[in-house]
Amino acid sequence: MARFMKAAVFVEPGRIALEERPIPEVGPLDALLRITTTTICGTDVHIMKGEYPVRKGLIIGHEPVGVIEKLGSAVRGYQEGQRVIAGAITPSGYSNACLAGDCAQDGAGTTHGWKPIGGWKLGNTIDGCQAEFVLVPDAMANLAPVPDGLTDEEVLMCPDIMSTGFGGAESGGIRIGDMVAVFAQGPIGLCATVGARLMGATTIIAVESVQERMTVARHLGADHVVDFRKSDAVAEIMRLTGGRGVDVAIEALGTQQTFEACLRVLRPGGTLSSLGVYSKDLTIPLGAFAAGLGDHRIITTLCPGGKERMRRLMDVVASRRADLKALVTHRFKLKDIVAAYDLFSHQRDGVLKVAITP
Amino acid sequence: MARFMKAAVFVEPGRIALEERPIPEVGPLDALLRITTTTICGTDVHIMKGEYPVRKGLIIGHEPVGVIEKLGSAVRGYQEGQRVIAGAITPSGYSNACLAGDCAQDGAGTTHGWKPIGGWKLGNTIDGCQAEFVLVPDAMANLAPVPDGLTDEEVLMCPDIMSTGFGGAESGGIRIGDMVAVFAQGPIGLCATVGARLMGATTIIAVESVQERMTVARHLGADHVVDFRKSDAVAEIMRLTGGRGVDVAIEALGTQQTFEACLRVLRPGGTLSSLGVYSKDLTIPLGAFAAGLGDHRIITTLCPGGKERMRRLMDVVASRRADLKALVTHRFKLKDIVAAYDLFSHQRDGVLKVAITP
Amino acid sequence: MARFMKAAVFVEPGRIALEERPIPEVGPLDALLRITTTTICGTDVHIMKGEYPVRKGLIIGHEPVGVIEKLGSAVRGYQEGQRVIAGAITPSGYSNACLAGDCAQDGAGTTHGWKPIGGWKLGNTIDGCQAEFVLVPDAMANLAPVPDGLTDEEVLMCPDIMSTGFGGAESGGIRIGDMVAVFAQGPIGLCATVGARLMGATTIIAVESVQERMTVARHLGADHVVDFRKSDAVAEIMRLTGGRGVDVAIEALGTQQTFEACLRVLRPGGTLSSLGVYSKDLTIPLGAFAAGLGDHRIITTLCPGGKERMRRLMDVVASRRADLKALVTHRFKLKDIVAAYDLFSHQRDGVLKVAITP
Amino acid sequence: MARFMKAAVFVEPGRIALEERPIPEVGPLDALLRITTTTICGTDVHIMKGEYPVRKGLIIGHEPVGVIEKLGSAVRGYQEGQRVIAGAITPSGYSNACLAGDCAQDGAGTTHGWKPIGGWKLGNTIDGCQAEFVLVPDAMANLAPVPDGLTDEEVLMCPDIMSTGFGGAESGGIRIGDMVAVFAQGPIGLCATVGARLMGATTIIAVESVQERMTVARHLGADHVVDFRKSDAVAEIMRLTGGRGVDVAIEALGTQQTFEACLRVLRPGGTLSSLGVYSKDLTIPLGAFAAGLGDHRIITTLCPGGKERMRRLMDVVASRRADLKALVTHRFKLKDIVAAYDLFSHQRDGVLKVAITP
Repeated sequence: MARFMKAAVFVEPGRIALEERPIPEVGPLDALLRITTTTICGTDVHIMKGEYPVRKGLIIGHEPVGVIEKLGSAVRGYQEGQRVIAGAITPSGYSNACLAGDCAQDGAGTTHGWKPIGGWKLGNTIDGCQAEFVLVPDAMANLAPVPDGLTDEEVLMCPDIMSTGFGGAESGGIRIGDMVAVFAQGPIGLCATVGARLMGATTIIAVESVQERMTVARHLGADHVVDFRKSDAVAEIMRLTGGRGVDVAIEALGTQQTFEACLRVLRPGGTLSSLGVYSKDLTIPLGAFAAGLGDHRIITTLCPGGKERMRRLMDVVASRRADLKALVTHRFKLKDIVAAYDLFSHQRDGVLKVAITP
Repeated sequence: MARFMKAAVFVEPGRIALEERPIPEVGPLDALLRITTTTICGTDVHIMKGEYPVRKGLIIGHEPVGVIEKLGSAVRGYQEGQRVIAGAITPSGYSNACLAGDCAQDGAGTTHGWKPIGGWKLGNTIDGCQAEFVLVPDAMANLAPVPDGLTDEEVLMCPDIMSTGFGGAESGGIRIGDMVAVFAQGPIGLCATVGARLMGATTIIAVESVQERMTVARHLGADHVVDFRKSDAVAEIMRLTGGRGVDVAIEALGTQQTFEACLRVLRPGGTLSSLGVYSKDLTIPLGAFAAGLGDHRIITTLCPGGKERMRRLMDVVASRRADLKALVTHRFKLKDIVAAYDLFSHQRDGVLKVAITP
Repeated sequence: MARFMKAAVFVEPGRIALEERPIPEVGPLDALLRITTTTICGTDVHIMKGEYPVRKGLIIGHEPVGVIEKLGSAVRGYQEGQRVIAGAITPSGYSNACLAGDCAQDGAGTTHGWKPIGGWKLGNTIDGCQAEFVLVPDAMANLAPVPDGLTDEEVLMCPDIMSTGFGGAESGGIRIGDMVAVFAQGPIGLCATVGARLMGATTIIAVESVQERMTVARHLGADHVVDFRKSDAVAEIMRLTGGRGVDVAIEALGTQQTFEACLRVLRPGGTLSSLGVYSKDLTIPLGAFAAGLGDHRIITTLCPGGKERMRRLMDVVASRRADLKALVTHRFKLKDIVAAYDLFSHQRDGVLKVAITP
Repeated sequence: MARFMKAAVFVEPGRIALEERPIPEVGPLDALLRITTTTICGTDVHIMKGEYPVRKGLIIGHEPVGVIEKLGSAVRGYQEGQRVIAGAITPSGYSNACLAGDCAQDGAGTTHGWKPIGGWKLGNTIDGCQAEFVLVPDAMANLAPVPDGLTDEEVLMCPDIMSTGFGGAESGGIRIGDMVAVFAQGPIGLCATVGARLMGATTIIAVESVQERMTVARHLGADHVVDFRKSDAVAEIMRLTGGRGVDVAIEALGTQQTFEACLRVLRPGGTLSSLGVYSKDLTIPLGAFAAGLGDHRIITTLCPGGKERMRRLMDVVASRRADLKALVTHRFKLKDIVAAYDLFSHQRDGVLKVAITP
């Protein structure tokens, strides 16, 4: 095995560069994956811009599809050469948070066992997977074998996009017959739309303004697509629901405007399921909140991870219930990842997600 | 039966007056109660001050204990002369909201069946119970017979205070062994403390600064009482929980300061259960909200109503699991209700709740 | 209006006859519907055979589609002439059971407010709807307007078949990615299959042996159909799930054999959702039950009713998410209902459901 | 460190003997505990009698309190010399079952990740803790430090008895104001009674016939204790609940008689929470089951494990909410464990639990 690899590194705010790095040593609980396909996330763009702080020199990326190159000495149940994915969130499985069911807030290593966003390690607190190799911690909790017959691109959305988007639908507690609004139809919002559809919502209203995304939203299951540049989205949703409002509103952008609009379109007793990564304090408008008396729920969800989650999501792909192929709009080689960031971060050319291969 | 009765009426902002009013006519689904005991709520003070708008001339009050004087022609299952209570929230039972389990957002009479705060009718959208008589709508869904052996004062907290306070604990999803913080120990906050205790929380931290309320909080089950005037409540709660934060934080005041403090003391994945009636927009601080990635839940609860809820709460009283006698600190005759409002609204003399009798 | 009507009456075990009956008087909370379409349920066959006891002379049938002929004096919110349906279960809305969310166990009229199967009134404890007219009790809780554009036949499955079948999926707590087995693909089982699909199950295994039903099951969303006459259904399901078993097994027949098979195909921690009407004591096999240590759940569900449920189900129909047209295989005039019973009870000619019109 | 230790070994049905065994080798994920206190469980008696099969030569016992003697090479976050407990169930944390929240059905090592009762390892599939030393697998998921100030005996009930008994209350979904019946008041049933009390049940009816246990039940929170030898327990419970039945019935013995009685005392829509280890097929009586139409739930619970569960339970002990000291009725040295088994298995001398020390 080679000693060095190529990797996309956060150099400083505004700059990601491809560098040469040593291939990591494998600890007893780790697995080393040889990456076959990965992708860039909106969060990576936040990192690149310095809006979400990580240490300089970190390898970024948290959506790995690959092959097991080497297993830690204490890892059982896998074989080198197996095709696997790992989630964006790689829970230890053994922290108090994990054992309480809060894997994404994994506090392994802390005194009390809880840490905000602690489950997100790859490309955040440890080196990530926009590289030729990546070390997956706590491999036994995180490696999910890819079923035969599924391509890399077919499972590429599982580690983050599907898991987060579906998570928004799940946290909303969507039931058969629900009316649901989804604000923003980027990759996460589109997966929230798909999740709402999978859970039985019968009126799904997607809000977006980019033409390509509106088209994909309709294709993936939105019953109505509201262009917020052409009409007042709140008024339009109230009209479409006969003045009642939706049971669940999903925020998939991360802005005050969409957060607030979610509250305004909720029926009393409804749920705002929030997926966005916010960059400022949020305001809850008194009226839309019924002064605190509307039996509202606001629930935030960080991408669920762990191998069981990945298994389920790959089952969804294999079942052909949801066809997310349309999300991969562009393909790049790892050596051209800087160009990929440029395209993706500027949302040029109708890009939704890019596939990166070595 | 007399034709007229005394009643506390909202005259205009700043003024409630005792007036003479006709005893109401009884519609087919109604019951007329002769009030034997009632009380004043913090919300009534908001009404008096004009902060919560109701129509001028409305009889206020929503916490009735009384005797059935007359039943509507279609009402079955009760007898005149029976001692009963009704909740502050009097759901119809037949709106879409009610049938979906959202009784407090009862939209009976609307097209689609949902109305914000629609279940709160007494002293809000129809005449209330600070009077000699009150008409209870949809009597079959709302009248709960008082078990023998319970006094009026013992069940006086059921219609609103206990139901709301316990509701805050219930919406928090408190589990055996939880750490819970309750911000403010007025009557609602005290009942939230009792509710948290009843549900098995093992570390209950009450935040308050009024000496009498701190004492009652301790008596009713708080393990720790933090005086926010003497120490930084957030820092103190973090210290008491070993740096982890609480599983559930209950807001029982209705201010930005307490709402925000709740978020700051929550562990990742924790629940903010909000009971307060807010009077301004709220701000969610970005950091305490983990930028939307902390798996937080914010849940608001309007007082649960209906006769089954009242039955359960009176069972709690009868079981002696919770002794709320200490909450009734003062007693007034209905004819002196203006003086009672004066005492209560200025929180003089360690007042918690006043009992009003005819 | 005429004074008399035709109605299908339970005469004695083995015999249902069309008789002339007075059109019922309308009480203050009732609504009189003129039936435009109704159907026969498997339970009606049990009644006919004397296996489920009802009083002699009762008009049977509990799946009404019709037009409001007359409203009770206290009923608000509807107009005569409106097209509506009511559920098989017609909750009062005001019993303790209803207010606790257990509408199907509605105990209106009892001391404590709970009654086993108490929500099922039409064609069970009061006259039903296989007639020209039917009286719907507690009309405000039960009448659901039919959306424009939906035909009688399209909403005919809502009152019972869809509500029960979907209820089986819902009580199973099916989640995106679940593996589900549904035992028996009669009308209820087929709707359970549809419900499982709507909730996001990705592996749905239907068990049946009648060829037409197997075909419809596949058409409505089953991924695999196991013919239990040709193979060992338990073994086949274990094979299809890689030895793990299903997350949820739905029993939709009402026999020991299917109940037991459900347990045998469940993964540890799985849920048996039981819809069948049993006619004998059931046996739980020790091994399949892991001696009580398998974290199993057995949940029974009686058809959910009430107008909000009906609204939701008609929304599902309107959304075209589920196309249940294939379930109506035969059509009869009310005057020929005895022949319809004959066909239906003998499951001749591939019958699934029959539509009965006046 | 010595090379050999004393241990209670299952020799053959009917015989447990104290033998000398090598102190186990410590694998990378393990921890070796020096046992300071342990106890005997009813399940151990089943093992001794050959009713629950384990391999001959196995060291039994699954309720360890001890000190960390040696940590595996990959274990982080603990120190040798620390006082800890581990649960009877020692989940890996990394199986699919664990990551899905079903730790007790941990299928680590299986293809699909689920195994019936797979989380129970100590004294079942691997050597247990009725010995001088025990090896705890997956130490990071299982070792819970004992808070200062708690004695061994105070935390001795946490690994199994409290966790199981409370689990029965939790699986019942007990709410404030519930009526609950608990059948049998052995150690598990007593803890179910305590759990019901902690969760806010206001009418708790314990069923038992042994005088000492009836007394302890009353002391620990039962409102009524029914002696099933002196009266018909079902009839008595129906009388005490005004003919309605209980919301939750907890089975804590493992017999047909108590299982069936639970169903008979449930209100429609109620939950049977089953804790017993059964030794025969069970029968569900048709009538009590409302022919499958009563919206009943039957839920079985295997003792929840893992360090977070242990932490919570020790918090309950530390909070003095539940005082289980009365459960330790006898004390033995490890060398006398055969005598302890004799006393315990014959339930002589009012024994509830025995403490075993080296």
